[in-house]
Amino acid sequence: MARRTPAPQNADMPPRTPERTQIGIVGAGPAGLMLSHLLDRAGIDSVVIDLRSRTEIEHTHRAGILEQGSVDLLVDTGVSERVHRDGYRHDGIELAFGGGGHRIDFRGLAGASTQLYPQTDVFIDLADARARDGGDVRFEVTDVSVDDLTTDGPVLRFTDAAGVAREVRTDFLVGADGSRSLCRHRVPDSECTQYFREYPFAWFGILTEAPPSAPELIYNHSPHGFALISQRTETLQRMYFQCDPAENVDDWSDDRIWDQLQTRLGANGYALKEGPITSKTVLPFRSFVQEPMHFGRMALAGDAAHTVPPTGAKGLNLALSDVRVLAEELERAVRAGDAAPLATYSERAVARVWKAQHFSYWMTTMLHTLPDATPFDTRRQEGELASVTGSTAGSTYLAEAYTGWPGAR
Amino acid sequence: MARRTPAPQNADMPPRTPERTQIGIVGAGPAGLMLSHLLDRAGIDSVVIDLRSRTEIEHTHRAGILEQGSVDLLVDTGVSERVHRDGYRHDGIELAFGGGGHRIDFRGLAGASTQLYPQTDVFIDLADARARDGGDVRFEVTDVSVDDLTTDGPVLRFTDAAGVAREVRTDFLVGADGSRSLCRHRVPDSECTQYFREYPFAWFGILTEAPPSAPELIYNHSPHGFALISQRTETLQRMYFQCDPAENVDDWSDDRIWDQLQTRLGANGYALKEGPITSKTVLPFRSFVQEPMHFGRMALAGDAAHTVPPTGAKGLNLALSDVRVLAEELERAVRAGDAAPLATYSERAVARVWKAQHFSYWMTTMLHTLPDATPFDTRRQEGELASVTGSTAGSTYLAEAYTGWPGAR
Repeated sequence: MARRTPAPQNADMPPRTPERTQIGIVGAGPAGLMLSHLLDRAGIDSVVIDLRSRTEIEHTHRAGILEQGSVDLLVDTGVSERVHRDGYRHDGIELAFGGGGHRIDFRGLAGASTQLYPQTDVFIDLADARARDGGDVRFEVTDVSVDDLTTDGPVLRFTDAAGVAREVRTDFLVGADGSRSLCRHRVPDSECTQYFREYPFAWFGILTEAPPSAPELIYNHSPHGFALISQRTETLQRMYFQCDPAENVDDWSDDRIWDQLQTRLGANGYALKEGPITSKTVLPFRSFVQEPMHFGRMALAGDAAHTVPPTGAKGLNLALSDVRVLAEELERAVRAGDAAPLATYSERAVARVWKAQHFSYWMTTMLHTLPDATPFDTRRQEGELASVTGSTAGSTYLAEAYTGWPGAR
Repeated sequence: MARRTPAPQNADMPPRTPERTQIGIVGAGPAGLMLSHLLDRAGIDSVVIDLRSRTEIEHTHRAGILEQGSVDLLVDTGVSERVHRDGYRHDGIELAFGGGGHRIDFRGLAGASTQLYPQTDVFIDLADARARDGGDVRFEVTDVSVDDLTTDGPVLRFTDAAGVAREVRTDFLVGADGSRSLCRHRVPDSECTQYFREYPFAWFGILTEAPPSAPELIYNHSPHGFALISQRTETLQRMYFQCDPAENVDDWSDDRIWDQLQTRLGANGYALKEGPITSKTVLPFRSFVQEPMHFGRMALAGDAAHTVPPTGAKGLNLALSDVRVLAEELERAVRAGDAAPLATYSERAVARVWKAQHFSYWMTTMLHTLPDATPFDTRRQEGELASVTGSTAGSTYLAEAYTGWPGAR
């Protein structure tokens, strides 16, 4: 989002229409819409704005693995029935290494499952639920700014899709506006700490029109580098392989891609079902956290506050767990007329964020080949994978984290 | 050990006295002596040689944490009763981070314990047991060589403590001669793979005449670097702190050492009981594995085949688990007159070695501060420590590895 240039109120522009809501939310992705939905259930008003159109967000293809707690949140709060009908329940994953596959049985070990259900469908369900319940969601706005953050009445300013300048007074503001968050940039450097980590590789992701090659995800370690075999539908599959971050998709023919994937999976005895490749993208690997996740009367949620590498499938799930906690604390804050619960929100959310950062780092470093990896490193990884899969405790530790930590739902 | 220069058989030297044994063992440390002891119980003869005197080995101070399986091996095979009497059973450790301590309850989680019992005492017990049972152990030999390794009768040559040149024909040879193994160097490069890893830090180790500061070991993570608080007796304690490998002990006064230790432990709320420091050493961090752990009719065991960093307390325990497996396979090999069981020994031992390498690497990287560590790395480590200590499965996974893996005893 671009910074708003303060617009002079001259005779050519309609005057701002003053409005009032309890919570102003910047960003109508899954985090912002879920928060608005949860607040509504608690009897709290909100206004949600987004620079993008609804159609544009629907066409943003992202992660597709929901933790057990994310599925429960969508179903239990009346957002989605079709997550069970149109999604695919996965009761485990395969960890493939050293010539074979080793299943981690999520249901048997952690009593939980994951659901293959794309982020775009989560968005559609949430947008439909907000529309159904009369939620105030405004797409295609421009000139967004958030101000008066340290006062009792922070203000949200924007120009709506019809070109009308708007000003909304709120009790609290929430930045749920993604990794390039405008709201995050309003927190003074002196009031927060930012943590970064770069990884020396990326994922080359494809969509292919082919039947599934496996019933569950395969996390594939190999001397040739990591690969992940995922699914989408009976006729469309998602696959990834570790690549150089500078890789250009135009240099990769379908044949060259299939050769990489078949070689890496073949090392562990798998053969993939091929089909036309309809999408090729390079996904960067980054870790980022900003602490605390609030400033004055503004809270940050989801990618606005943190980014994880995709290996642990935690990005969307963290965003949903953030707003589940944030809705509880905002309800306390509104009732008390006090910003203190925002600090509690930050503490509760940050603890989970760092567990997720560690889990994402762990899955990444256990399975990927670093550019300077020695044969020792590869054997050590195989030793770790053998330790984890050979131990009920080790497998359970992984299953708990992957499905979203019991007791933290 | 220096390579033997072939000695001419001239008139000034007594002629070699040809001897015969079933197993020739180079190295009378815990691995070599335990192997000789186990073979004796199976009715198999062995000769053990070592360049060092018994007194010299007794004064080599090393690790002091025995896995449950190591304790069981010493007790159940009649080597040591005093390991229970003179040692200290530890039913857990403290993982200290983020301002406090978090106990890992080995007994409650993994049904096993460790025993604080120094390596020098393990050696004394083994040397006494071998002497009691009439074992053939020859200290202070010189000019050692092993030959004819790929024949049915490999030969061990050395000059004994009395200056007599000896030649012992064997069925099988074992190199249990430590990290600078002479035997390992006899394996042609084309017949093995060597795996290395260096770590960019070392441990500064001290002995102090003070009462114990804690009942169990404290593995202390801190922004100032790692420290380990260990014990030896009621009046003598062993402590370590992470340092630069190039550190010179002469630059470290007692005051400076205590300042480092108190600062690191104080970050997590501990205060150490100080006393005079009677020993200061810098311990290097290295990982090494040679595979396979046999060549022709020679097997390698313990440090001769692998080195682990000290963080996981696995060095001595791996040596003992190697020879427990090796004794079984040598018994098969002797009975069958066939070297094939040595390959089975290698496969069985190597699987455990890589689990131990991983565990040592895990404990090291979870707890130490890398020279180029960012604030992200420190927070990520705290996220990992919170994940492990906050999960019964995660704590059990650690407890199983630390106490020596159930079912692998």
